[in-house]
Amino acid sequence: MEILEEVLRRVKPGPEDTIRIQSAVDLVISRLKDLDAEVHGSFRKGTWLKGDTDVDLFVFYPRSVGKEYLAREALREILDRLQGLRTRLAYAEHPYVIVEVDGVEVDVVPALRVESGDQAITAVDRTPFHTRYVTSRLSDEGKDQVRLLKRFLKGIGVYGAEIRVMGFSGYVAELLTIYYGSFLNVLKGASTWKPGTEIVLERETKEFNSPLVIPDPVDPRRNAAAAVSMKSLATMSIASRMFLKEASLDFFYPPSPEPQPVLGEVLVAEIKLLEPYVDDVLWGQIRRSVEKIRNSLLNAGFRVVDVGWCQDERVRLLVQVESTQIGDHHLGQGPPFYLESSTEFILSNRHVWVGDDGKLYALKRRKEVDPERIILNSISLKYKYSVRQYKLTEASDDCTRAFLRKRPLWLK
Amino acid sequence: MEILEEVLRRVKPGPEDTIRIQSAVDLVISRLKDLDAEVHGSFRKGTWLKGDTDVDLFVFYPRSVGKEYLAREALREILDRLQGLRTRLAYAEHPYVIVEVDGVEVDVVPALRVESGDQAITAVDRTPFHTRYVTSRLSDEGKDQVRLLKRFLKGIGVYGAEIRVMGFSGYVAELLTIYYGSFLNVLKGASTWKPGTEIVLERETKEFNSPLVIPDPVDPRRNAAAAVSMKSLATMSIASRMFLKEASLDFFYPPSPEPQPVLGEVLVAEIKLLEPYVDDVLWGQIRRSVEKIRNSLLNAGFRVVDVGWCQDERVRLLVQVESTQIGDHHLGQGPPFYLESSTEFILSNRHVWVGDDGKLYALKRRKEVDPERIILNSISLKYKYSVRQYKLTEASDDCTRAFLRKRPLWLK
Repeated sequence: MEILEEVLRRVKPGPEDTIRIQSAVDLVISRLKDLDAEVHGSFRKGTWLKGDTDVDLFVFYPRSVGKEYLAREALREILDRLQGLRTRLAYAEHPYVIVEVDGVEVDVVPALRVESGDQAITAVDRTPFHTRYVTSRLSDEGKDQVRLLKRFLKGIGVYGAEIRVMGFSGYVAELLTIYYGSFLNVLKGASTWKPGTEIVLERETKEFNSPLVIPDPVDPRRNAAAAVSMKSLATMSIASRMFLKEASLDFFYPPSPEPQPVLGEVLVAEIKLLEPYVDDVLWGQIRRSVEKIRNSLLNAGFRVVDVGWCQDERVRLLVQVESTQIGDHHLGQGPPFYLESSTEFILSNRHVWVGDDGKLYALKRRKEVDPERIILNSISLKYKYSVRQYKLTEASDDCTRAFLRKRPLWLK
Repeated sequence: MEILEEVLRRVKPGPEDTIRIQSAVDLVISRLKDLDAEVHGSFRKGTWLKGDTDVDLFVFYPRSVGKEYLAREALREILDRLQGLRTRLAYAEHPYVIVEVDGVEVDVVPALRVESGDQAITAVDRTPFHTRYVTSRLSDEGKDQVRLLKRFLKGIGVYGAEIRVMGFSGYVAELLTIYYGSFLNVLKGASTWKPGTEIVLERETKEFNSPLVIPDPVDPRRNAAAAVSMKSLATMSIASRMFLKEASLDFFYPPSPEPQPVLGEVLVAEIKLLEPYVDDVLWGQIRRSVEKIRNSLLNAGFRVVDVGWCQDERVRLLVQVESTQIGDHHLGQGPPFYLESSTEFILSNRHVWVGDDGKLYALKRRKEVDPERIILNSISLKYKYSVRQYKLTEASDDCTRAFLRKRPLWLK
């Protein structure tokens, strides 16, 4: 397929890319001499995309030092060795160090050396086994198939296991390619996925209750696809079906959305974080806030179309409702006339009557008719923040336009 | 109970009332000499309310002349005999004649003479058997109990079998009193009614599917309470329970409603009939129109609180909605992603997306956002009429105030 060749031309790194990254890595490793340092991740596995210059460099410590050692002593040692380079701290399960050398970012991550994947104590301890599993099962051609799949997942917006995306990790992309054999076969498979689909490469040791289940070949008690949300699963399945129906470069490189009219009414809550935050922690709180916004608005009587978000320097929550005007009063339904509780319903409501169906009804005053206040009260972040709220009148950025368009950009 | 004595003082006719009506009846009967004329109805049965001056006078013809004879030849003969008196025509199953004598209205109704209630050909042929059944089973005290019940039914708004009311006829009030023994016992019984309650005085010969079932003792294949709607049944049951809890004259003589604010929004359609109509036929059409208004508004996305009506020279339909503003667009739900039909849903909608639950959603333009137009299009009367529509801002008449109050007037 011509499209796939074109994509591969764009995503496959050339020798010069490899040399540039390798030099940066070599420099960092030279600083870590006599430590147990190894490169892992997609660079090592040969499944990285051109332009993605993140390299994972693991520094292993004996299992016996324990988890807590990594976050303090190990980190301090690593920082010590990298003195003079451009470093900064980042946070995942543990803090780690990001070094920038010649435009290449190297994540230097302390980990524990274990004997097999199922002995992992921290999430990253499993990495060497992932590397070994993937490299032993992927040919060079297979690696390119992984690249196509990763670019496809990026294009349709479901690449990455982080809470903001809740999608497919690079490792899951590799496992899918190994299982199905090729990029197009992954799509054929994905187009028939259902919630709870299980993809078993080696063996399964327990039942998982997730939209997508892929027991990790190096630790089958773990679901490698645990992060994949129902929405990501559905998006991948639908995009696969649509691509197989009519292939297009848009799936890999979606076009920018045209200007869009505001349909319904869109309320924006622009959140400015006032202290440093860990991305995954923040997005966990934002996801919960979004759920609460949706439920609180529905309970208050608003018809919610969709809640979305955009992130640049600020996080913007976009709340789309059919109408912000829902009236001061609403109809409440009571029990049928012949139930005991009907007397209580009459006594506790002023504007109460018998309906044609023999049920009691009451007209009740709404507790809250201002959707902006409901949204504000539903945002709960543990970091310090400020909020600015306004009604959207025009969408000038791509993210807001895509939200208004609703139709995925990879669909004509 | 003092309240009941007070009501009885008001509803029980005195000798002078009887004499006045009897003189009017005697005059009419004298004109019908040598015809087979008999007084029936509540005046004959002694269950009429003071001030209710409607008298039923039946003129019987042999069964052999057939139904069609009544509407033409019989009617012509009756009109002929009544020449010179103030007469007008009225319409039920057949046309009949209303004569006014000294402020008393006598309905002169042609009917067929049959041998038993179950041989009735027209609805009124059963009347002599009703008269005989009721008078043979009601003592003078029993008649007063019927009067209390009728006034109670009037007070709570469910007296009358006509389509506008769909309530309890005088005959049903008599049967209930015979069955339960007294007014208060009717209320005790009614307060435990459920949909489908059966009250069998003599025998039952078939299954009825109505909110209330009372096989007619003179023709058990007929449900004497067939007209009672679920709403009337429920209203009677609830009012009975409330009266037994706290008796009040308000149940018999509800007070006028105080001025009321408009809660939600109320749209009025004022219908002016432009040609003569039969009340029951018109109200059948209005009931169907009201049902259509309710369903069309709900389908269009409006939240309907209640639809009511008021009748003076015009018929006014009162449509109460939570809000008349519902926005130009609405959320449409599609199938879950894994169903075949999801592809079709995507292809047939422009603003379509995958929801968090893996279902497809679409934002659709509403076909109609003007509730007044929906109401107008839902009114369908077979008589000529004109409609004036407006939004209610103030309720100056009792009927509209009662509609806005919602709470029955017999409840404090």
